[in-house]
Amino acid sequence: MTRFSFNQATANRWPIPDLVAGCVEAGVTRVGLWRGQVAEFGLEKTAALVKDAGIEVTSLCRGGFFDNPQWYEENRRAVEEAQVLGAPVLVLVSGGLPPGSRDIDAARSHIGESIGRLVPATVEAGVQLAIEPLHPMFASDRCVVSTLGQALDLAAPYPAEAVGVVVDTYHVWWDDSVWAQIARAGRERRIASFQAADWITPLPEGVLLGRGLPGEGCIELRRFREAVDAAGYTGPVEVEVFHADLWARPGAEILADTIAAYEAHVA
Amino acid sequence: MTRFSFNQATANRWPIPDLVAGCVEAGVTRVGLWRGQVAEFGLEKTAALVKDAGIEVTSLCRGGFFDNPQWYEENRRAVEEAQVLGAPVLVLVSGGLPPGSRDIDAARSHIGESIGRLVPATVEAGVQLAIEPLHPMFASDRCVVSTLGQALDLAAPYPAEAVGVVVDTYHVWWDDSVWAQIARAGRERRIASFQAADWITPLPEGVLLGRGLPGEGCIELRRFREAVDAAGYTGPVEVEVFHADLWARPGAEILADTIAAYEAHVA
Repeated sequence: MTRFSFNQATANRWPIPDLVAGCVEAGVTRVGLWRGQVAEFGLEKTAALVKDAGIEVTSLCRGGFFDNPQWYEENRRAVEEAQVLGAPVLVLVSGGLPPGSRDIDAARSHIGESIGRLVPATVEAGVQLAIEPLHPMFASDRCVVSTLGQALDLAAPYPAEAVGVVVDTYHVWWDDSVWAQIARAGRERRIASFQAADWITPLPEGVLLGRGLPGEGCIELRRFREAVDAAGYTGPVEVEVFHADLWARPGAEILADTIAAYEAHVA
Repeated sequence: MTRFSFNQATANRWPIPDLVAGCVEAGVTRVGLWRGQVAEFGLEKTAALVKDAGIEVTSLCRGGFFDNPQWYEENRRAVEEAQVLGAPVLVLVSGGLPPGSRDIDAARSHIGESIGRLVPATVEAGVQLAIEPLHPMFASDRCVVSTLGQALDLAAPYPAEAVGVVVDTYHVWWDDSVWAQIARAGRERRIASFQAADWITPLPEGVLLGRGLPGEGCIELRRFREAVDAAGYTGPVEVEVFHADLWARPGAEILADTIAAYEAHVA
């Protein structure tokens, strides 16, 4: 279980102190955190709690949303929060089309320019921005970056220690170019984060909360883990699953099932 | 309105005789038909009805579903039906992963081989098979062909008059390689059908019935129409929209709104 990291979103209703205690109890030493929950419990309190518990924060979700007029200030704050938490990676979800816009090319260009403006501050903070391609079903309203190839193209102008990419199986499994792009991401030293979730159908209304635990769906999860390994990635493997039924269960149960699913289908 | 074709699925509950009468009334001379509705009314009766009304059947939906063990017999029947209706194009939706399978590469290879087995009969029937890439959100359960590039790769071994592709804006709008692939499709003379529908959110449960009429969503529809034109396509422009709210309305109203949306946003 040495590479396993439990992304907080998998047990979305588990309060942070319970999450940390539950991880310690289960021998889990890595978590991915979300800004909303961290803010709710308190940034400094969270940082102290995980530090005292010997837990490493593998990523902070999320910056990005460059369609928000306040994107610059928001992302600067997110970088500072990552720094306080000791998270080496800030996951960027780019945002969708601006209201009323049909110009996806312009939205994608805007992401590239915006990231460039953030780079100096992130380098100074020692935080790597990680561009996450989201499944194309989110292209209009959540993330205009739809493929790993696009994410790597957007990252290309900047040093790898400043801007990397997230490989999340749920978002990229359908893409037949993904294997070549994972190899490219490795060569370019851009794999900042590897996240695993499984694809299940039918999708729920709004399609956000329809992910499966590893093994419940149709993604070749171990093939992905082996591909990022072969590309030279040696970092944590986060499991990040959003599902309404899962969220309704007690946090410790979710964690136990997530660990078991990771061991059986990803490790 | 000379290139406009009304795809029957847009007014899914409109009985075929009413559809034909409604099209005549509205001056619409082209329709796309679906096998289920045609079978319900009767194949020969439908063929006679459209012929007498001077209506051209621009495509028949759909063959494919190569994950069905009876795919060969089913597709042979679909080709015969297209021939009887005078439809020059049989749209192929490939089908998803076989039950329990995670091997999307194998499923995609199987599509290519299966199409090859159908080619001799379709050439003899004078019907062109048209591989339709579906949005990646359908990859597991409906269509493992997710991009126009994949569809063209699958079509490549066969003559263009035997195997073409469908460009449906709803399925490919998010893909930044689509413009290059449309140009390629033109060079390879593979554009068998051009279909327009708009992308709207939130997606409904199951994601099948969430399409918008042209203009309701965020797709650059006219840019797509101009791109297929620039690639040398001179055929019909089908509007094909699935939406539960639309289906609940009277057929003639749906047709009128569809024509208006086509004129304003596609033509």
